[in-house]
Formats: sequence, structure tokens, C-alpha cells
Amino acid sequence: MKKKIIIAVDAMGGENAPKKIIDGIIHHFSENKNTFYKIFGIKNKIEKFIPKTFDETIYEIIEANDIVEDTDTPLVAAKKGNKTSMWLAIDSVKNKKADIVISAGNTGALFVIAKLNLEMIPNIDKPALSALWPNKKGMSVVLDLGANIECSEKNLVDFSIMGASLLKSLYPDEFPKVALLNIGSEEIKGNDIIKSTYQNLSNKKSKEFEFKGYIEGNKLMDGDVNVIVADGFTGNVALKTAEGTANFITAELKKAMTKSLVGKLSALINIKNLNNFKKRLDPRLYNGAIFIGLDSPVVKSHGATDYLGFSNSLSVCSKIVKANLIEKIKNNID
Amino acid sequence: MKKKIIIAVDAMGGENAPKKIIDGIIHHFSENKNTFYKIFGIKNKIEKFIPKTFDETIYEIIEANDIVEDTDTPLVAAKKGNKTSMWLAIDSVKNKKADIVISAGNTGALFVIAKLNLEMIPNIDKPALSALWPNKKGMSVVLDLGANIECSEKNLVDFSIMGASLLKSLYPDEFPKVALLNIGSEEIKGNDIIKSTYQNLSNKKSKEFEFKGYIEGNKLMDGDVNVIVADGFTGNVALKTAEGTANFITAELKKAMTKSLVGKLSALINIKNLNNFKKRLDPRLYNGAIFIGLDSPVVKSHGATDYLGFSNSLSVCSKIVKANLIEKIKNNID
Repeated sequence: MKKKIIIAVDAMGGENAPKKIIDGIIHHFSENKNTFYKIFGIKNKIEKFIPKTFDETIYEIIEANDIVEDTDTPLVAAKKGNKTSMWLAIDSVKNKKADIVISAGNTGALFVIAKLNLEMIPNIDKPALSALWPNKKGMSVVLDLGANIECSEKNLVDFSIMGASLLKSLYPDEFPKVALLNIGSEEIKGNDIIKSTYQNLSNKKSKEFEFKGYIEGNKLMDGDVNVIVADGFTGNVALKTAEGTANFITAELKKAMTKSLVGKLSALINIKNLNNFKKRLDPRLYNGAIFIGLDSPVVKSHGATDYLGFSNSLSVCSKIVKANLIEKIKNNID
Repeated sequence: MKKKIIIAVDAMGGENAPKKIIDGIIHHFSENKNTFYKIFGIKNKIEKFIPKTFDETIYEIIEANDIVEDTDTPLVAAKKGNKTSMWLAIDSVKNKKADIVISAGNTGALFVIAKLNLEMIPNIDKPALSALWPNKKGMSVVLDLGANIECSEKNLVDFSIMGASLLKSLYPDEFPKVALLNIGSEEIKGNDIIKSTYQNLSNKKSKEFEFKGYIEGNKLMDGDVNVIVADGFTGNVALKTAEGTANFITAELKKAMTKSLVGKLSALINIKNLNNFKKRLDPRLYNGAIFIGLDSPVVKSHGATDYLGFSNSLSVCSKIVKANLIEKIKNNID
């Protein structure tokens, strides 16, 4: 029998925790039988959501006396120390009691507590926050999304390697095509760091990914590249702007579609197609943000997601462990 | 009788020039009778598109021997000197023969040739490229969109003042609400320049605009602010990402809507509503990008737009001149 994948789950983070966390685990287990869940949190709050029929041999609840609140600053959260479910969950991957850790809680706190406790992968200078975006042909990995406001050439090269390894882990059939997010002003292309990173990656000739040069914001979702690299400031602005634009358009569309009775009726007729469309854009389907660069993967699920979104983040965990992401990165870093 | 607004038009830039330029002028004039057009370009190419019925007293064609190509670098374009229609059009505002200049040609070239020929507004250090974006409540001015990759605190404060003046010029009924585009990482908010600009604008207490602090990418289109300020790199990434996201969503939507016969039929029924939606998002309606900071306004129309889009850019010109934008900026700058 294959070795079980052990996931350390912070059960207390995000809206409707711990209910959605437990429901997410149950849903995830139905499709990933070879998993063991270490569930960190306040035991009596967690237990009441676990159905009696759920197999007791596939999970363990580890009591935590405190939780990280969404409103805690990272510093306040870190000062709560090893009493919180978040800290304890991270601690368990540090001590090799789990293969990967996941939380739907406070992003800044998760990042800081993970950095405090976990070692960096050798030769990586900074961890990055990465996420999945849809494109016209499939999915892309985008990083950094806000962990590092300023990045060096070395950081951006590291991000390229880590992003390519992550893509390969999640989509084994895809070949990573890396591009640097840049602007298209005819005058000057990008700043000095982007230009020197371009040179560095052009000379690299890696077997693990193809370097496709620069990409502009309007091409991000075309699918010609599937690993998009930026400093954390730029990446965050791009991610959030895409989100805002999507919300704006769907709101405007809804307004336009339901303005008249005929519009309402035909929207009703077309509901199956619209649902397919919504499904394609459903953020729950690519709900895992991943900190990479630490010697254990740390997965952040969106705080506002439901149990299905959390279950999808758990699937990201499964894939990352199965694909041995950290070893992949170690092998690909010079 | 009111003084006529004189617009210097580079007739040779953009796709389908000069036809769409002339058609745009004719359309614009039908709603803006108090205008005189100085049309710069190759006379025999322009004349054939002007209908015999068009009033000869409202325009003048000024012969240019050369044109700036879309493929010219700004340097190559500038070296062509005062033989090109673009240079001559800019020259006419420099010499106060026209109130404003517009081109649908090469953006980088237009920017460089304008900077070479026109003075800066006193106390403004750098010009910025600004544009209009739709939001849930109306329109926003966004700048800088790529003219300056790196910006100082002073630049960002200048952009705030110029953006507020531009919004007021185009939408006299709106009060400018300025925000700095920033990221929402819980760890650290923005870089040092953004933070010091925040302090500067908070202390300013301008009567010309309200400073609303930071804005994240996902709130750009909510309409709570209507002047969005960023350095040129960040602004360009945001603009292009919004464009790419809009294209992606409409492509996916079309796919979803036309997948089945029923879908196609109901899309047909709903066509009027979809058209209203498209109209709301039609880039031709806010097709004018504006260089501000030079002592004469320079308007860039999108190269790929049609005559209607060009006509809308001409309307932006009319509003800017009527509102006396440059004087507004001079009054608002310390």
C-alpha cells in the first residue's frame, strides 16, 4: 500500500470555520482515500461537525488553546506563539509529522509564522506567494502575489524555477512556459531588474521550462505562457485588478441581462450555459494560493470560500505532495 | 460669438488613417459646431475622403512630407523632424496656432516628440499618460499609464493634482476623489514612495479634491474614487490586465452562450440587452488617452479604433479646451 499523504489542517481559519473545513475534508476524502488529516483547532467546536459515519482512522484532532483572528496583525498572531491552531499546524510539518500544511485563515499571519518556523529551500533567497489563474487554454501559475514588494534579479529567477516546478506538479502533462510580466511602453521596456532577469533567463537554457520573454497584462490570459513571474507589488496589482474587472463585468452583464422581461426570460432559458460559464470562472476551482520557497509547502485557501473551495485547496495539497514539489525545486535550482 | 476651438489633427496615424480620421472629424463637427480643424498630413490622401458637402471654412489641410510609422522607434520618429504630420501638428500648438493636438499614431513617438517641443507646466516635473476607465457609478481618470516607470513622491502628488483637474474638466459635475493604487498585503503596505505620498496627500487638504487613501486593484471599478494614481509601470500593468481580463471573460461568455442551439436562440432574443452591455463597455466611448503635464494638452486616440472612437477622442479635446485644463492645473499646483 502506498504511503498515506498527511495533511496538517488549521481548522479555525476563514469564514464559517471550522464547519466548512470539516465539510471540505469529508468531500476531499471521498476522492482522495489515501489521505490522513491532522486537524488543529478547538476540539469541541470541531467534533460536532464530524458525522458519526466518518472513519475515525483517517483523522486526528489536535487541541489548540488559541486561534489567529482575521484582524490580528502578523506580529500579534506570531506573538500568540505555539498556542494557536495555525502555529501548531505549521509546527507539525516542521517536525515532519505532516507532509503539507493548509489554512484558510489570516494570510499575513500564515506567511510570517511559516517563515519563523520553516527553513528556506537551500539557495532560494525569498519565498513567494503563487496562485492559479485561468487562461484560454488551461491554467497558469502566477507569482509573486504580494509576499515581496521589492525583488532582485535572483529572486525573479528563483520564482521562475519555483513556478515552473509548481506548474509541473499540478499539471504533469503541461510543459512550463515562463514569462516576465512587463509593460509595453514603446519608450523603455521595464526597469533594470526586469531587463537583467530577462538576460539571465535567456542565457539559462533550462530543460525544465521554456523562457518566453516578456508578457503584457492584456496577454496574461491568452494561454501562450503558463508561468507568469513578477515582483510581489506588480503581481498583486495584476491579480486584484483582474478580480475587480471580472466582478465589474459580471455585475454589468447581470444588469444588462435582466433589464427587460424578455431579457430575464431569455437569461432563464440560457441558464445552463451561464452556469457553465460561471463554472469556468469559479474561483473555488483554483482556490489554492501556495507559498513556495520554504522547505515545506504551505497552502492558503481563500478565507471566503465554501467547503468545495476548501476541498479544492486540499486537492492542491495532494498534488503537491504526490509530485514531490520541494524535491523538484531543489533539483532545478543551481 | 464664442472663440472657436482649434484642434490640430495628425491625420496619418492609426489603422485606416486618414479615412477614419476624416470620418471622425465629420462626425465630431456635427455635434461640435464651434470647432476649427487643422489637419496635418499628405494632402492628396486626405482630400479624397472629404465629402464635397463639408464646409470648407471649418478646416485647413497642412501638407506634411513624411509620416511617423507605427513601427518607428520614438528616436527614429523624432529624427524625421519637422517633416512629419505628427511633428507639425505638435508644432502648431507650440506656436499657439491650435489649442490642442490629437493623434491616433505611435504612442511612444507622440510622447517623445511632444516632450521635445513643448514646455512643462511650471512646477510639474514629469508629464503623465492618463486615460478614462468605467466604474460602477461613472468614469475614473487613471494615471500614469506608462510614461514614467519610476516615480518620486513629488511626481505622484503632481499626478493627483493633474488627474483631479482632468476629471473636473471632463465631468464638471463630479468632485474628484483621489486614491493611490497599492497592494493589500497584511504584512507591509506598499513601498516607501507610496507611503510618503500618502502622508503628503493626507496633509495637503486640497479644496480641489478629496484624498481617499489607498485603493486595491479589486476596488478600482467600484466607483468610490474617481482619480486613481500610480507610477507608470503599475498603472500600465493594471490597465492592460483589466483589458486582458475583459477580453477573456467576453470570449468565455460567448463560448458558453453559443454552445447549444437553445443557447444561441436565447442569446439572439437577448441581443438588445447584450448590446447595451457591450455599449457600456465599449472602449470607443472612452477612447482618449491624455498626456498631461506639458503646457499644452496632447490627446492620443487608440490606433485600432474606428471613426466613432476617434470622434470621441475629439470630444475629449473639446472638453479639455473648454474647461481650460492647463490653467486649472497651474492654479492647483503649489
